[in-house]
Amino acid sequence: MVDLRHHGDVEARGMLDLAVNVYDGPRPAWLDAALRSSLDEVGAYPDPSAARAAVAAHHARSEDDVLVTAGAAEAFTLVARLRAWRRPVVVHPQFTEPHAALEQAGHTVTPVVLREPFTLDPALVPQDADLVVVGNPTNPTGVLHPAALLDGLRRPGRLVVVDEAFMDCVPGEPESLAGGPLDGMVVLRSLTKHWGIPGIRAGYVVGDPLVVAELARAQTPWSVGTTAAAAVVACTGPEAAPEATRRAEQVRDWREHLEKGLADLGIHHLPATASFVLARVGDGVHAALRERGIAVRRADTFPGLDGSWIRIAVRPPDTTNELLRALSAMP
Amino acid sequence: MVDLRHHGDVEARGMLDLAVNVYDGPRPAWLDAALRSSLDEVGAYPDPSAARAAVAAHHARSEDDVLVTAGAAEAFTLVARLRAWRRPVVVHPQFTEPHAALEQAGHTVTPVVLREPFTLDPALVPQDADLVVVGNPTNPTGVLHPAALLDGLRRPGRLVVVDEAFMDCVPGEPESLAGGPLDGMVVLRSLTKHWGIPGIRAGYVVGDPLVVAELARAQTPWSVGTTAAAAVVACTGPEAAPEATRRAEQVRDWREHLEKGLADLGIHHLPATASFVLARVGDGVHAALRERGIAVRRADTFPGLDGSWIRIAVRPPDTTNELLRALSAMP
Repeated sequence: MVDLRHHGDVEARGMLDLAVNVYDGPRPAWLDAALRSSLDEVGAYPDPSAARAAVAAHHARSEDDVLVTAGAAEAFTLVARLRAWRRPVVVHPQFTEPHAALEQAGHTVTPVVLREPFTLDPALVPQDADLVVVGNPTNPTGVLHPAALLDGLRRPGRLVVVDEAFMDCVPGEPESLAGGPLDGMVVLRSLTKHWGIPGIRAGYVVGDPLVVAELARAQTPWSVGTTAAAAVVACTGPEAAPEATRRAEQVRDWREHLEKGLADLGIHHLPATASFVLARVGDGVHAALRERGIAVRRADTFPGLDGSWIRIAVRPPDTTNELLRALSAMP
Repeated sequence: MVDLRHHGDVEARGMLDLAVNVYDGPRPAWLDAALRSSLDEVGAYPDPSAARAAVAAHHARSEDDVLVTAGAAEAFTLVARLRAWRRPVVVHPQFTEPHAALEQAGHTVTPVVLREPFTLDPALVPQDADLVVVGNPTNPTGVLHPAALLDGLRRPGRLVVVDEAFMDCVPGEPESLAGGPLDGMVVLRSLTKHWGIPGIRAGYVVGDPLVVAELARAQTPWSVGTTAAAAVVACTGPEAAPEATRRAEQVRDWREHLEKGLADLGIHHLPATASFVLARVGDGVHAALRERGIAVRRADTFPGLDGSWIRIAVRPPDTTNELLRALSAMP
């Protein structure tokens, strides 16, 4: 049994970090100011209403469609505990937290394990699935599923959960479902990665207002702290938009540098769309890189992958070049 | 059915606040510095290990006895979902969140409703209770139960949960169970009230290491943010101790001023031990005070109390005097 609760952050400690999928750049001044001034407000209980309004405005939705959460992780827990799921399905390989949260809540998950190139054939999803969880773009494969394909997974009596934690890496977000009709569907978003603030637990759910209301009723009171709520307001506001786009474009440029380097070395990798690249380097390379002080994310804890794969976080070219040099020296 | 999720914070908005039980004084410089410097660390995923070690040292316990939580509220949710409780008992009147969390988790709560003077007769707790939740000192009654009495509630197959969210108001904490043997028992603590930081979700559980391990397994990953973890380290460290004691003594002095004023007005109230006083002012006084811009906590949402009671937060004498003047003008 693989460890579904293994995450990149424990791999990166004290190493050159190409394991953690967090944007590697300075914090914008307006975000830093919002975080710092939020500390003047922590003498009162947290109130997520401004954050909820900001998210609604950002996606041009009703506030009834929005729940602010303590990161996407809280949303996974809420979804897992929402109902007595009869046949919850998780499409793998993907971020393992939704699967782990479902098991933690006592459910037996039906995994749908895709094969390379890891695109989704909807016929693989059992007809009687009452919960389907899929990532878009998918961590760790980098596959960006067409919005229409995911939309087509909806059925009466089924909830479709689309984890868009990395969607803000995709310039223009053409395949995001966050702005469309969402009956029987919720979209999860995270501020952690694009804005480089995983220490502040900030994310949100947008979707079917009936489901959002159910999730809200199950939420622990005050679970979103004052600083997290302030981060949501700042990062979904108009001031954030140009920097959000700039980062998405920069991540794309940095990623292209990484992909070209891998291609030059003849290393097989998947076409990527987010802030990481899944590459098949062969068994033993993950450990060999660690010996050289370079952390990449092991992929054998993702159902459907094995020790021959690694997930490489997109970094500025100088950092990427260090990895590429190390890879080129591998036997 | 009363609203178990009614809390003082919604009563206080825009009013002179004697509703919210949070210490009303400036933030210590060392705490402010700890919160601000934590923002330099939020580019990494949160790691509660230093906070856990600090709590263990503070209570002279093993780290295995400690779980850091996103406020006491997360601990209530974790306890509620911990097991398929057959007969969970909540001793009322008390803070309603544990009861609400148990109902939210699908349990049917057996309330034990104490009568004035709201001291606990252990014979009232059903023998077959497998979970007993009690507050000490109890919000809103102010009753401080003897530690030995609560310790005597332990039984094989039963978990006793003692909510000590206001224990740091009691100078010397003579009735705290946090330092003693805790087989079959957990103690919940909060940093919110004494340190005036409800916007930062910071609390912890100490107790039976087997139960702590069970709670930890059910916790959502990264639920304690970086700033909350930093607050735990700061507020349980040696630098905090003199200020913790000074605040407890000041709260006691401020409370004595309030109690004397109520006595002078002939208003019945309970002997209090924490940062609030439960007073029987008569029906309609809560609303009449609101009309004068003064918020006290309505007590009719606490099982066992009714609209004739109010809970008054302990405040500096000038603020208390405003309330006393308003009360003296009531018919």
